[in-house]
Amino acid sequence: MDHLSPSTLLESLHWRYATKKFDASKKIDKKTWSALEEVLILSPSSYGLQPWKFIIIENQEIKDKLKSVSWNQSQVSDCSHHVVFAVKEKMDEAHIEHFIKQMAKVRGIDATSLEGYKKIMVGDLVNGPRGQMSAEWAARQAYIALGNFMTAAAVIGIDTCPLEGIDTAKYDEILELKGSGWKVVVACPAGYRSIEDKYAETKKVRFDSSDLIIHK
Amino acid sequence: MDHLSPSTLLESLHWRYATKKFDASKKIDKKTWSALEEVLILSPSSYGLQPWKFIIIENQEIKDKLKSVSWNQSQVSDCSHHVVFAVKEKMDEAHIEHFIKQMAKVRGIDATSLEGYKKIMVGDLVNGPRGQMSAEWAARQAYIALGNFMTAAAVIGIDTCPLEGIDTAKYDEILELKGSGWKVVVACPAGYRSIEDKYAETKKVRFDSSDLIIHK
Repeated sequence: MDHLSPSTLLESLHWRYATKKFDASKKIDKKTWSALEEVLILSPSSYGLQPWKFIIIENQEIKDKLKSVSWNQSQVSDCSHHVVFAVKEKMDEAHIEHFIKQMAKVRGIDATSLEGYKKIMVGDLVNGPRGQMSAEWAARQAYIALGNFMTAAAVIGIDTCPLEGIDTAKYDEILELKGSGWKVVVACPAGYRSIEDKYAETKKVRFDSSDLIIHK
Repeated sequence: MDHLSPSTLLESLHWRYATKKFDASKKIDKKTWSALEEVLILSPSSYGLQPWKFIIIENQEIKDKLKSVSWNQSQVSDCSHHVVFAVKEKMDEAHIEHFIKQMAKVRGIDATSLEGYKKIMVGDLVNGPRGQMSAEWAARQAYIALGNFMTAAAVIGIDTCPLEGIDTAKYDEILELKGSGWKVVVACPAGYRSIEDKYAETKKVRFDSSDLIIHK
């Protein structure tokens, strides 16, 4: 197993920044993009339930439409691939059943042997106290995927910019999610920074480590 | 800039799994751990506001106490470093002011030139509609940090396990956060997998990519 050295990892994370201006002429090549899709798919989630869909937009017309409901932030139209994170509005037994079946298939086991596991998940996220807030639970999971995506992109030299400042209801409309049971929570354009983006050289602002880290 | 190849990145992410059993005899060395603390500090957040504290527990007695309020999951006591993610219960002007001052200091600019930026943040997260849900907003940010942490750990060969199944109120008590304005949202032990952990070899379960990815 070929691991990265801690110092090289940190170089990548210092190199990363919330890209303000992408070079619209540079496209992420197919092989690299396909790896980043696999990164998204491999994102960890609670119970492994993957309560998400990743909508990847390359179509310029749709990117331009989405830009207009993203406070006109140029990254949306200038990026190579615009990634939109959608989550289940309400966790349900059908999703959990689908997951159990997939688990049985992938691992070559009998789905009936997973009944106990299924009951725990349904009891927690559908019928339990967390059932009422399962959309928020799902949104948190999507933010794990977002963190995973940005870090993974950085270590292979791809620029990103997390975008909370988007009109998620309008995104739902444009992406035809309305009534589908899925809703947009956050977005993240990816591509290559423009050499004109002065923010690339701006110093990162972090609180002192004594403000952020408590040792026990 | 020395970037990782997409295929090596994917190897690391396939190697990663939610570690069920850590080797309690193996400790992450100081240099590697210090890099992982920097990874946490470098986590991206909305506006860069870092509404979090990372509590790192190495003390065995505290780890054992926390295990008892984590459904007795052995990872909490057997890991090398137990990372607990806490967030601000309510975003306030003082935090934003602190951030603005830090930005002015780091970038060598006058804090008064950042008044406009400050007003936007206060108008959004303190007095705006998101002010009522700023704890949830902060929790989502913590999940970015969690995703960043797990992915970064994986690429340098460190094992982790995200833990939502913890009694966060009891964590707040044990970690003396009650009344501090901060509260625990999630945890993630880190260390080295035990050779006895059969889950390391269990096939990852992911939905088919056609279920997860939509291209537009």
